[in-house]
Amino acid sequence: MLRRIKNNVSASKQQKMNTFGTLFTLTSFGESHGPAIGGVVDGMPAGIKIDYDFIQSEMQRRRPGQSTLTTARKEDDTPEFLSGIFEGITTGAPIGFIIRNKDQRPSDYENLKDVFRPSHADFTYQQKYGIRDYRGGGRASARETAVRVAAGALAKLFLRERGIHIQARLVQVGNEKEPSRMEELIKQTQADGDSIGGIVGCTIQGCPVGLGEPVYNKLHSALGAAMLSINACHGFDYGAGFEGIGMKGSEQNDAFTTDSEGNITTLSNFSGGIQGGISNGQEICFRALFKPTATISKKQQTVNKEGIPISISVTGRHDPCVALRAVPVVEAMAALVIADFLLLSRNSK
Amino acid sequence: MLRRIKNNVSASKQQKMNTFGTLFTLTSFGESHGPAIGGVVDGMPAGIKIDYDFIQSEMQRRRPGQSTLTTARKEDDTPEFLSGIFEGITTGAPIGFIIRNKDQRPSDYENLKDVFRPSHADFTYQQKYGIRDYRGGGRASARETAVRVAAGALAKLFLRERGIHIQARLVQVGNEKEPSRMEELIKQTQADGDSIGGIVGCTIQGCPVGLGEPVYNKLHSALGAAMLSINACHGFDYGAGFEGIGMKGSEQNDAFTTDSEGNITTLSNFSGGIQGGISNGQEICFRALFKPTATISKKQQTVNKEGIPISISVTGRHDPCVALRAVPVVEAMAALVIADFLLLSRNSK
Amino acid sequence: MLRRIKNNVSASKQQKMNTFGTLFTLTSFGESHGPAIGGVVDGMPAGIKIDYDFIQSEMQRRRPGQSTLTTARKEDDTPEFLSGIFEGITTGAPIGFIIRNKDQRPSDYENLKDVFRPSHADFTYQQKYGIRDYRGGGRASARETAVRVAAGALAKLFLRERGIHIQARLVQVGNEKEPSRMEELIKQTQADGDSIGGIVGCTIQGCPVGLGEPVYNKLHSALGAAMLSINACHGFDYGAGFEGIGMKGSEQNDAFTTDSEGNITTLSNFSGGIQGGISNGQEICFRALFKPTATISKKQQTVNKEGIPISISVTGRHDPCVALRAVPVVEAMAALVIADFLLLSRNSK
Amino acid sequence: MLRRIKNNVSASKQQKMNTFGTLFTLTSFGESHGPAIGGVVDGMPAGIKIDYDFIQSEMQRRRPGQSTLTTARKEDDTPEFLSGIFEGITTGAPIGFIIRNKDQRPSDYENLKDVFRPSHADFTYQQKYGIRDYRGGGRASARETAVRVAAGALAKLFLRERGIHIQARLVQVGNEKEPSRMEELIKQTQADGDSIGGIVGCTIQGCPVGLGEPVYNKLHSALGAAMLSINACHGFDYGAGFEGIGMKGSEQNDAFTTDSEGNITTLSNFSGGIQGGISNGQEICFRALFKPTATISKKQQTVNKEGIPISISVTGRHDPCVALRAVPVVEAMAALVIADFLLLSRNSK
Repeated sequence: MLRRIKNNVSASKQQKMNTFGTLFTLTSFGESHGPAIGGVVDGMPAGIKIDYDFIQSEMQRRRPGQSTLTTARKEDDTPEFLSGIFEGITTGAPIGFIIRNKDQRPSDYENLKDVFRPSHADFTYQQKYGIRDYRGGGRASARETAVRVAAGALAKLFLRERGIHIQARLVQVGNEKEPSRMEELIKQTQADGDSIGGIVGCTIQGCPVGLGEPVYNKLHSALGAAMLSINACHGFDYGAGFEGIGMKGSEQNDAFTTDSEGNITTLSNFSGGIQGGISNGQEICFRALFKPTATISKKQQTVNKEGIPISISVTGRHDPCVALRAVPVVEAMAALVIADFLLLSRNSK
Repeated sequence: MLRRIKNNVSASKQQKMNTFGTLFTLTSFGESHGPAIGGVVDGMPAGIKIDYDFIQSEMQRRRPGQSTLTTARKEDDTPEFLSGIFEGITTGAPIGFIIRNKDQRPSDYENLKDVFRPSHADFTYQQKYGIRDYRGGGRASARETAVRVAAGALAKLFLRERGIHIQARLVQVGNEKEPSRMEELIKQTQADGDSIGGIVGCTIQGCPVGLGEPVYNKLHSALGAAMLSINACHGFDYGAGFEGIGMKGSEQNDAFTTDSEGNITTLSNFSGGIQGGISNGQEICFRALFKPTATISKKQQTVNKEGIPISISVTGRHDPCVALRAVPVVEAMAALVIADFLLLSRNSK
Repeated sequence: MLRRIKNNVSASKQQKMNTFGTLFTLTSFGESHGPAIGGVVDGMPAGIKIDYDFIQSEMQRRRPGQSTLTTARKEDDTPEFLSGIFEGITTGAPIGFIIRNKDQRPSDYENLKDVFRPSHADFTYQQKYGIRDYRGGGRASARETAVRVAAGALAKLFLRERGIHIQARLVQVGNEKEPSRMEELIKQTQADGDSIGGIVGCTIQGCPVGLGEPVYNKLHSALGAAMLSINACHGFDYGAGFEGIGMKGSEQNDAFTTDSEGNITTLSNFSGGIQGGISNGQEICFRALFKPTATISKKQQTVNKEGIPISISVTGRHDPCVALRAVPVVEAMAALVIADFLLLSRNSK
Repeated sequence: MLRRIKNNVSASKQQKMNTFGTLFTLTSFGESHGPAIGGVVDGMPAGIKIDYDFIQSEMQRRRPGQSTLTTARKEDDTPEFLSGIFEGITTGAPIGFIIRNKDQRPSDYENLKDVFRPSHADFTYQQKYGIRDYRGGGRASARETAVRVAAGALAKLFLRERGIHIQARLVQVGNEKEPSRMEELIKQTQADGDSIGGIVGCTIQGCPVGLGEPVYNKLHSALGAAMLSINACHGFDYGAGFEGIGMKGSEQNDAFTTDSEGNITTLSNFSGGIQGGISNGQEICFRALFKPTATISKKQQTVNKEGIPISISVTGRHDPCVALRAVPVVEAMAALVIADFLLLSRNSK
């Protein structure tokens, strides 16, 4: 295994890599089959009322096992909040929370202990750390997104007080863009024991002018990084995006005008609400591409730790179209980004 | 202008936003028509030999005025290195450098002083800071990319000692993917006083296994953020990307195998060299989408600071297809990201 | 309350301020009387064996109620580790842990709800956040140091594998430097219902040459910041420190020499093991000054939220000399700093 | 040189270590005898008027060669500002500046090329980086403080608009605290070709209530780190500090009261204007200890790179009491810290 050793940069570890954001931050931890996953939200302003019902409803949106189109795993996704909230109001102190893991079936994964599943993180984690929690993907499991949604719900409570609303939805599955056809394709793919990719579209309304930091932290750059950090997300664009590749500048430029109230606005929004990396007051719209889930029940060729060829057929829970379950996660990550930029932009002349 | 005032988060400023990277960092400064632009590269390991000819050749690749297809502005892009190098070798101290601005024609821009050019940063900067250097776009000018290329050249000197090579090229202009047709389209667009979008493809070879930090700082997430931070970049994908949307998991999964030397590798590379956010030793490949340059000579409708409608016809220098000039910038940003992740991954068990 | 309002910068919140360190980081959360306190240690290298007995012994050292000289509060300080450890070995994933709060007596504090205790954080928190968890000091409680000790214990496990050992002890109480006299003074002070300050001395052995980053992150600068972040720490010095103020350069300079093995070393160590901000291989020694605990049972004058003068006599648990309990906390913070700098310095030429 | 090799963590480099601050940041570069030193101030709010005369007067205060008590080196310390300022007003863009090095006499240092001067950074830099710019201390030279003073002057322009004023002065030299005796002692020490330590006291007036972030970034913790990052600073304390070690809590607690305007204030200020890590509206006062300059003309014993014993007598320029020259540097670093915390605290409920 000369090359593998030669190339192995060896057991480095995440460095500040489990913390997301600059001022409004989420630091997360936890593996799919450990005692619990959880996070710490720091930077939440003091004085925000916590709406537990809303948070739980967000968790429900992400929870698997709610439709025949998503994995059957039962998860009790009720975060236990441990700090930063006093008499239902945020105090400005960090908000720590945990979500206990239940319904674990390590036995599902025992047989994958020494196997590198195709297009999974098994091989790269093993190489990078020299050790891995192989149960359900460990730290690389989609289970981790439950923490993002819980933190995103807190960010949304902050944002909605500012009149900012985020809405994502599945806009494409494979080559289908029509709802009934998308559902049909997912069902068919599931029946085939296969998986399919999709695209989630997201819009942000009520965003003030001025969010985004020039040069290296443009608003769309941060949104892109946030989306691409979600498991299986392989692409991002905003405004006209890749589909506007055929347009000329004279067609894609958004002409400025003044509305009935005398406010400066634009006639079109091919810029997706962001110009020069800064929000311009229009609706922000972007897309996130999700590849087909790597986990499929169809038989596949791969190798084990020793490099010996074997064929596997994964029986664990999995989704035919992960993009479907990613919808609330996309919203949550967008909420964390906007909350962060709201704080970053809070400085008067 | 009620809404504008209401929405204006007012004079915040870049916050650590002119620094790129975690351990291998670039902090940049400078406006298009100020005395100079420059940067500070921190984290460059000690003991690296500086190849000034290579750095200059990289600057030449970005420099405008070299072809009839790019802006006619003459720039003398020779960085003056001020520190961190002793007898031609890096010392581990920060490398400061400046590039003097020459051939400035502020008069070109005087007439744009109070005008918000469509799809430019004029409006958002004015709203965010309450003041802006309107000469040539100031901080938002593509001139800033010269600093990225100079810093990227330093990163490349570090990377090539590790056998890592980065290569970008223009792969699409409008709907054309064939070189001669792309050039034809650019010429035609230029003749029309218009602009057109394009896509730059980039590959990274020789990257070790293990670069990338799980969860919030996946390698592709950082590459995406880096590309999206380049002016006019509106999209990013890697591996099969958006064009692979029709594929099934069974088609897109990269089966593991062992090569003749007994190293574990993959039969295909739809993952674009990255799995679970970590490089897997295969060639890394991604794409960056660039929208049509906002600056066109065709007459356009817009408003001035007071919101009064006016029509403008920009005479300043500009590119018909900014993607063409972005090629060396894409390489430079990729080099900064890989250098940073090499340092991040440098920790033994 | 004009001035108070005028000066009140109002409800800002900790910003990334509950995360300590650059690469080896601790993010903590929790209040004295909430459900739990806890933390996330990120950056712990993969492959470190976790010695739970050692961690618990460290917690015991900090735990109050073990001597007649410290507060009588009973705490069950057993951290529950939730992630980052697989089969007793660190995986490189973040290590999340919580410590449940028990033996809470909010009633002790109900009477302090609207009172600003002298030299406590009551007033400043109220002004800064507009709300505060007044129970036992909330986030400002010394209870928070339990998280530092748990995280420090993890850092020590990493450091001891590198042969680095940290040892702190109480070196002065009031003006007394002799153990029996120090204990005598503490007892007398306790009997008086008063409190007294002290100094903790700390030494670090086995530190390699080269830890410390020039200019803004010198090793002693980071150690100083770490100590000063501990409640009641009001001073820091290293090497000869304040007591060496009368020495001349010719006396305080540490002459270089070579030892029997031919290694370059110094004849004296007035530099405290750090030169130019970088460890020089000698024993690192520094001191941390702790002021008298603000909480005393003696009657004191103060005001309530409305500014009405009142006199209070705090009956809650407290220590006559907080420096005594700070000893393991000083070690823990030093361990976090050294672990962080070990990672920072891990880059070859 | 076994141990040296064993202990050498080898050529790591500053990692983000040439950037100071969180939101109001200074990134600096430059060596004593390179072409120039300089910095980038990022986070300066837009709309601040630049007073160049004030900046120059601050530079003059630091400049050597102004009194017989400081080094004779002539420096032209006029910063050239390159960006972030438009028509005399800050734009919110990063402010880059350089200060050319003049009057260099490398020959002064040629003889020190292979020598490790006692208590200097020569040995540790050589070990850490494997290479060093030995001319005048290179990056470790006090020359670097000119950049701190230039950046601090910018911060002061921002602070004085907020009514915040910073004042430092030499309060002790050796054991002398009386001005004329301090001067006498410095002169005598200079005549002896020796050096002496001193203490700089600093006060900050007009600071609003609420600056400081609880737990890991307390205001005094940041001030301490800032001071300890200045060359030769070996100690820090605030409020009663080390000299208050004999006081009881009942003596040192600052009783709250209300002033004539009905504002809550304190009767005493042993807390040095900071409680719970947050400014309480009183005058902030702290001390910074400076050890005797390592550079003395007296003959000293040391070793060269090969560990061969030699004796040296440094003829280069140096100060008999570096604390004297540190006064404006202490103010500059305090200004950078306060400006940073003002931005950090700018978030409404």
